[in-house]
Amino acid sequence: MDEVTQPIATPEAAAPRNRRTAGGREAKRAARSARSGHSVPYITRKIPYYEVLDEEGLSIIEHNADTILEEIGIDFRDDPEALDIWRKAGADVKGERVRMPRGMCRALVQATAPREFIQHARNPANNVVIGGKNTVFAPAYGSPFVRDLDHGRRYATIADFQNFVKLAYTANSIHHSGGTICEPVDLPVNKRHFDMVYAHMKCSDKPYMGSVTHPSRAHDTVEMSKALFGDSFIDPLTGKPKTVCISLINANSPMTFDDTMLGAAKVYARANQATIITPFILAGAMSPVTVAGTCAQTLAEALAGMAFVQLVNPGAPVVLGSFASSVSMQSGAPTFGTPEPALVLYVMAALARRVGVPFRSGGGLCGSKIADAQAASEAANTMLPTCLGGVNLCCTPRAGWKVVCPWATKSSSWTATRPA
Amino acid sequence: MDEVTQPIATPEAAAPRNRRTAGGREAKRAARSARSGHSVPYITRKIPYYEVLDEEGLSIIEHNADTILEEIGIDFRDDPEALDIWRKAGADVKGERVRMPRGMCRALVQATAPREFIQHARNPANNVVIGGKNTVFAPAYGSPFVRDLDHGRRYATIADFQNFVKLAYTANSIHHSGGTICEPVDLPVNKRHFDMVYAHMKCSDKPYMGSVTHPSRAHDTVEMSKALFGDSFIDPLTGKPKTVCISLINANSPMTFDDTMLGAAKVYARANQATIITPFILAGAMSPVTVAGTCAQTLAEALAGMAFVQLVNPGAPVVLGSFASSVSMQSGAPTFGTPEPALVLYVMAALARRVGVPFRSGGGLCGSKIADAQAASEAANTMLPTCLGGVNLCCTPRAGWKVVCPWATKSSSWTATRPA
Repeated sequence: MDEVTQPIATPEAAAPRNRRTAGGREAKRAARSARSGHSVPYITRKIPYYEVLDEEGLSIIEHNADTILEEIGIDFRDDPEALDIWRKAGADVKGERVRMPRGMCRALVQATAPREFIQHARNPANNVVIGGKNTVFAPAYGSPFVRDLDHGRRYATIADFQNFVKLAYTANSIHHSGGTICEPVDLPVNKRHFDMVYAHMKCSDKPYMGSVTHPSRAHDTVEMSKALFGDSFIDPLTGKPKTVCISLINANSPMTFDDTMLGAAKVYARANQATIITPFILAGAMSPVTVAGTCAQTLAEALAGMAFVQLVNPGAPVVLGSFASSVSMQSGAPTFGTPEPALVLYVMAALARRVGVPFRSGGGLCGSKIADAQAASEAANTMLPTCLGGVNLCCTPRAGWKVVCPWATKSSSWTATRPA
Repeated sequence: MDEVTQPIATPEAAAPRNRRTAGGREAKRAARSARSGHSVPYITRKIPYYEVLDEEGLSIIEHNADTILEEIGIDFRDDPEALDIWRKAGADVKGERVRMPRGMCRALVQATAPREFIQHARNPANNVVIGGKNTVFAPAYGSPFVRDLDHGRRYATIADFQNFVKLAYTANSIHHSGGTICEPVDLPVNKRHFDMVYAHMKCSDKPYMGSVTHPSRAHDTVEMSKALFGDSFIDPLTGKPKTVCISLINANSPMTFDDTMLGAAKVYARANQATIITPFILAGAMSPVTVAGTCAQTLAEALAGMAFVQLVNPGAPVVLGSFASSVSMQSGAPTFGTPEPALVLYVMAALARRVGVPFRSGGGLCGSKIADAQAASEAANTMLPTCLGGVNLCCTPRAGWKVVCPWATKSSSWTATRPA
């Protein structure tokens, strides 16, 4: 990994000339202070990918994913419009079960989905390029609990949410403001998304994620984004909306998308906003226990979701997401930071490159409830594959049980956790 | 990584027949108990290596290492015999400085050093193959301090040493008994090695490391090994001693070997015992601050040391070792678990494969004095490259300031630390 190629103003360039006449100590302090505010907009890798599988192994998984789509199919639940879209596209729709001919989903995605795209930020210096050799780090996502030194573990509030957004904004190594950075349970569910999206808009000028908990909330996110970007929301070159937000669309694995996710995906796709189609899988409970089986299922579900987005609006940016961990075969509890999810990550990253779409996975996942040695070790065991495997967007997932906020050890003693 | 191919007795095979007639619960307990004693003798990898550099990058480093050997040379201090050996081999010896013609050291090593070798254990089921696609994990090495829940941090004793050997013996994932597993400071220095080597022989039947703190102590280790192995010390097929111990020979970087290390290396080489030639480098203090410069220097020093061993006894097993970390440019303090040493590890592993000798590096290195989140995170950041890079023998180094014993989180609350 290496720093990004976009030019950054150096402290010397930014400082007014008369600063130069100040004493040595003061000048050094000023330079330090200016430097500490630096933030590279994203990382561009110069190191190779770690490839676990060769051509033969990857081909077998792709073949098996197509077999899943063709023979078993994917449920698109409680959304007649979605079924209609699939029927018109030529898929075999029986009830809510959609079976896609071999190669159909891949062809749909490869025909129109961009290989990489710009997510615009309120501050254009913080625009990120998602895809290619770039890696964008976003904060953790979806923790209902927070922890601080004074009050220990407690439910999160909107004040916590705003603080986390500000912390992410000040963290040089976090390139994105994230989404549900914690769950502000002091606000009613049906209005919560307004305050959350507004916090990202007000307390940060980095790119942000949108609400997905109801299609109307996705719609609200798009409307707020229009208000924020004003005249610049529409790209004058294309006449289409710029992509200014990105949102998590999880498959309800195994082999199911529900109306909430499908509704939100349609809203965002039609507004040219990016979606991350992420099968959320605890292997052994929601997929085969093996790495290879989990990869085949993840690819099948992600291809179906991405193809659906392309059918709704050809060319809308999509990201192939993978969140895979495993359950303990003794207790059924989810585990994190173990070797199998790392192998899934490496394989899925390679498969996403072969589809030709950006890849989202990884993060500082762990099974610990506090920021202890277990948390740090397990987080490192996922974060390193995140870097070596070639993740384009890293936002620790909504569905993760416990996550260590990426900056927790850098700028604060706060961590956010989900209940076991 | 995957389990080893050598057959292991199953609980069913080992259990006497009449056990089968016992009740279900008792039978299960017996099976569990038998299983917990299982230990695979070593790991044989089935996953690819992570290669940071391509052919061009590796060739440049090899060329630069040859330039260092040819133009700057290596000091062989206070050992006239060593200088004589080099002179006879055709090197340019001026004072204690030895300059080797381009390619000479590599040719010497490749002519006679084995690509992989068996280190025999007292229990032949615990023999390890060092080199090739195999990875052998040994305990930490050289910590003067230990820590336990009752007494906190304190100097280590021989009782601690014996306990650590026993813990390593019971740990399934530790394949080797190690060497100076901690420094028993309650024993006089000139006799300490007897008790240490004896503890490995008595409290474990896994392979062990020898003393290197004086040539006479290396000699004592060989004599004790002869006594332990008795008639089986000599391989009937070759008539030569079996390799039953392996020992750490550190270069005093930059570009220096001293008489202690040279003397021990000669004793072990002449007895056909294995040596690990390890430049110990804190980059920025003992080598160039860059990864590429550190790799070139490490390769030069290791090639010189390994070639010396081959000149002393052609065919004696040698391992290319790399211990590289970096110092903080602000304080001068050593740091561990940072990205640069991981890059050095990946590159040196590839360079060792090109020489055609086993590679030793890695381990659970960290800069923390206690078993906290920093320790766990930094340890993971070295341990994962250890596995992905293709380390053949992992024993956290004598010269490491602070190490987390690999089994500390598994079977005990003990950790061993070195002072900062």
